[in-house]
Amino acid sequence: MTNSTLANGNVSIIPLGGLGEFGLNMMVYETENDLIVIDTGFMLPNADMPGVDLIFPDIHYLIERKEKIRGILLTHGHEDHIGALAYVLRQLDVPVYGTQLTLAIASGRLREYGVLGKAQLNTIVPSDTVELGDFSAEFIHVTHSIPDSVAIALRTPIGVIVHTGDFKFDMTPVDGKLSDVQTLARLGAEGVLMLISDSTNAERPGQTPSERSIYDTIDHIFQRTEQKLFLCTFSSSLHRIQQFIDLANRHRRLVAVSGRSLLNNVRTASELGYLHVNSDYLIDARDAAMFKPHEVMVLSTGSQGEPRSAMALMALDNHPFLKVEQGDTVVISARIIPGNEKAIGNVVNHLLRRGARIYHERNADVHVSGHGSSEDLKLMLNLLQPKFFMPMHGEYQNLVRHAELAESVGIPSQNITVAEDGELIHLTPETCEVFGREGRSGRVLVDGKPEIELEDIVLRDRIQLSEDGIVIPVIVLHSDTGDGSQQKDIGADETSATADTPTADTDAKTGLNAGEIEIISRGFVYMDKSEELIEEAKEITRRVIENLSDEQKHETEVVQDEVRGALRRFFSKQMQRTPIIFPVVMRV
Amino acid sequence: MTNSTLANGNVSIIPLGGLGEFGLNMMVYETENDLIVIDTGFMLPNADMPGVDLIFPDIHYLIERKEKIRGILLTHGHEDHIGALAYVLRQLDVPVYGTQLTLAIASGRLREYGVLGKAQLNTIVPSDTVELGDFSAEFIHVTHSIPDSVAIALRTPIGVIVHTGDFKFDMTPVDGKLSDVQTLARLGAEGVLMLISDSTNAERPGQTPSERSIYDTIDHIFQRTEQKLFLCTFSSSLHRIQQFIDLANRHRRLVAVSGRSLLNNVRTASELGYLHVNSDYLIDARDAAMFKPHEVMVLSTGSQGEPRSAMALMALDNHPFLKVEQGDTVVISARIIPGNEKAIGNVVNHLLRRGARIYHERNADVHVSGHGSSEDLKLMLNLLQPKFFMPMHGEYQNLVRHAELAESVGIPSQNITVAEDGELIHLTPETCEVFGREGRSGRVLVDGKPEIELEDIVLRDRIQLSEDGIVIPVIVLHSDTGDGSQQKDIGADETSATADTPTADTDAKTGLNAGEIEIISRGFVYMDKSEELIEEAKEITRRVIENLSDEQKHETEVVQDEVRGALRRFFSKQMQRTPIIFPVVMRV
Repeated sequence: MTNSTLANGNVSIIPLGGLGEFGLNMMVYETENDLIVIDTGFMLPNADMPGVDLIFPDIHYLIERKEKIRGILLTHGHEDHIGALAYVLRQLDVPVYGTQLTLAIASGRLREYGVLGKAQLNTIVPSDTVELGDFSAEFIHVTHSIPDSVAIALRTPIGVIVHTGDFKFDMTPVDGKLSDVQTLARLGAEGVLMLISDSTNAERPGQTPSERSIYDTIDHIFQRTEQKLFLCTFSSSLHRIQQFIDLANRHRRLVAVSGRSLLNNVRTASELGYLHVNSDYLIDARDAAMFKPHEVMVLSTGSQGEPRSAMALMALDNHPFLKVEQGDTVVISARIIPGNEKAIGNVVNHLLRRGARIYHERNADVHVSGHGSSEDLKLMLNLLQPKFFMPMHGEYQNLVRHAELAESVGIPSQNITVAEDGELIHLTPETCEVFGREGRSGRVLVDGKPEIELEDIVLRDRIQLSEDGIVIPVIVLHSDTGDGSQQKDIGADETSATADTPTADTDAKTGLNAGEIEIISRGFVYMDKSEELIEEAKEITRRVIENLSDEQKHETEVVQDEVRGALRRFFSKQMQRTPIIFPVVMRV
Repeated sequence: MTNSTLANGNVSIIPLGGLGEFGLNMMVYETENDLIVIDTGFMLPNADMPGVDLIFPDIHYLIERKEKIRGILLTHGHEDHIGALAYVLRQLDVPVYGTQLTLAIASGRLREYGVLGKAQLNTIVPSDTVELGDFSAEFIHVTHSIPDSVAIALRTPIGVIVHTGDFKFDMTPVDGKLSDVQTLARLGAEGVLMLISDSTNAERPGQTPSERSIYDTIDHIFQRTEQKLFLCTFSSSLHRIQQFIDLANRHRRLVAVSGRSLLNNVRTASELGYLHVNSDYLIDARDAAMFKPHEVMVLSTGSQGEPRSAMALMALDNHPFLKVEQGDTVVISARIIPGNEKAIGNVVNHLLRRGARIYHERNADVHVSGHGSSEDLKLMLNLLQPKFFMPMHGEYQNLVRHAELAESVGIPSQNITVAEDGELIHLTPETCEVFGREGRSGRVLVDGKPEIELEDIVLRDRIQLSEDGIVIPVIVLHSDTGDGSQQKDIGADETSATADTPTADTDAKTGLNAGEIEIISRGFVYMDKSEELIEEAKEITRRVIENLSDEQKHETEVVQDEVRGALRRFFSKQMQRTPIIFPVVMRV
């Protein structure tokens, strides 16, 4: 897009993540002169991305426009909104704005990645307004599963855009701080040009219950539990944690906090006053075994069945100091995220085998969502009465459903834009249109701790490796110097690969001879039981090479191609498998 | 277990599959003299088993006792109950008993695997009794999502055991054939020693609605759909298919059947009278485009987002002759099986992008289960009033929940056995106890079409390959013959691997020198961008070899171990990754 199309204060909106998937939330707002970013989230990979640890949005669009960037605005402290902040700040030196708790949580990771020192962190409180060039951002308190969450009203030269962040309308929030409907209603009365709103629960009918609604269920579980009680939730679900701690006090149980992220968040939130904990009742999880079972409540993470979490370790009796036993109760107080059913189910099955009683969202009311359902989303639309609407945060089906809800409350369908990551939305006072695609947007796959970007080709190789394994024919080609003594036996590696005895040198006329051939493989067949198959593959390889002309034998690529083709046909016919075949040609 | 413990007509029960997982259903009943098997099911693998196509139960227990086997009894024609029959019959020559439809469906696969000719298939009808040595088996009709399903009452020397198979109590079945509650009640009145019952939906409260309950919803969708209508379900859901065909007739749409398994089942079931289809209304799916959109209903499979299914191909506009377009409607009338959410979600998102309206079990009443819920399971317990109870078919959590239901209707907890695959349950007139484990039980992982058994080590390799890839250092060791002319340059494969120039031969005193070293990798790093890393790894490899004594250099295993260890430390420190490292040592 040229600057001219952005003349007259018109605004470009570019979702760099979160429209078409859950997580990876990042939205760009841009005028001719200035650019701001709301949220910098990451995403965790699916099972179909082996060896990928994290996914970040591609920020080439930002890097190319770094002179224009006036700030990064954070709506709240969840990783799908702040998890890529360190990644972004290592490449861009721009000011960051967020509430106290949000910045405190973000700081942990910034410190870990060595960018906390240079980060320009600006703490805001709800109702603050920040001037950012052509934009002025007003922060509006909203209720969510983490305290100190905000929506953002962006005043632009052509009108107000409201970006909700994650929200629900909790009428009885645990911390007593309601969503600021007064401000939202005032903005609606003054006129909102565009609303961009959270679609996570657009497919759920009705209203999302209050966070407080789980209190009675958990209270009842406390009453029924005579042995140890384990409560498992996300480390960021601070309202939930507050209720658990209150209930532990009420039922005279000490609170043992297990897990680094949980400990950090409890400590940080307590220090800042977002969590009210009597430290007399907190004990080290290592000391839990010193107390009677009914005197302790263990607070832990691992609600998604993560293999290294405390909960997964306890399920297999592998935890160094926590143990689930007959008569204990485990409450998984979190959403069962699609894709994690199997892992969570495994943990539940193992806990049951140890004799524990298990509660989770499918058999008891031990969890409520932090995101508004259909009626909440309609309320947001009706409070703001925007001219234009665009759903964000969700897979395409959630966005489409949210668009239907917007239509149902009277937004004309031509004023609703269902866009996806990387599209450029062009907003003027009269129009809102998808203008094209930003080619450089996308995802960055990250593997390993020092965050090594993973090329797609490596991921594709991994998927193919995992399907059918790898076969490596190692071929030694001899120059025929007429000196028979030169050709020696191969020191066969009999333990892990099948070695070959050299064939008689029948082809003495040509300059190059196929000598030793080894075939090694991993993830393909069990070598010890497949000698015949491997022998046959070697014979095929040898024949392929013998049939090559002397000129062809001198071309490594030709040898590789011919061998690869022949073996591919052989394995495909014999076993209907297509391993990666990677011939190595050595010349001596 | 020795025969002596099986004296006096006592019975051993050995679940070879289906207790601890969904699928793989196979139960053994054994006396001193005779052995029978109920069901021979398979299971489809999870995403954590890359490259595994099918899972069969391990049948060593049966092979070791083949002289005692009097028959295999099949409860119904679903793959999780009959899918391993060909696998079993290739190893065991025993008679098979099942209803007409069950055997007709099973025959398809037996034919495919070349065992139909020798299979001894015996058709039974509900209420038949078959004598099988110490056992006499009475077949009892039950309602399920496929017609011609039966429970089995086994008369044994010590009393009656009822094995339910899959069932629900459908009060208005589509084919009008009710579950035979009269016979169940009579058995209960006469006295049942043990009940072994389906736990699939034990965690669901209430009663499972009738199959017929979806009719009105689908009828309403027919009324609302002005363009093409796609109905997607399992090829074995014949009651569902009957309703779809009836509705198509009613709404004057032709029925285009897409997919081989669906076509086969529709044909087989029609011929046998289990499906009533007016063939005038059936068209070839290839001809669907010849009719107006509102004149056609397409029946297809692919409800689980299977990548090669018609539905997945249409979602990406890759289907050779079927096309989903703006205004079309797609109904996914099947359970969203846990683990498949992501794949199904992807298909749904793509269909929405093409402008289709989508109905699935989460947003409309377009599916009901074929398995009884809590109240149905209690009814079965109350009809039979067994002395002993054991839940089957389900993960451990489902079995535990079913045991709780049994206790709630008055079965004493000491008479309830929650067992898992491979356990030996010993039943006498007075006791039912887990006696021990059968060591040879387990799962057979199968890869590829000719059903190659996959060793665990190959699967583990595949998982590691998929996590971090493979690195193969290829090391050429030269015997030092003092003949400098022998050492030649390597024909480097510059296109796909990094080659090395040979180092000067500085170590002329010893007998073996590290010559050429190549490092190749797949799924590890993008080689073109990692030259430095690879160079460093080569240097480390060279140094390791130079530091070996001459004796060590002669031991291929020692060279491999040292190189593997050094590179593992290097990659782990540099990248926190642990690829498979597989050194190849060649001697010339």
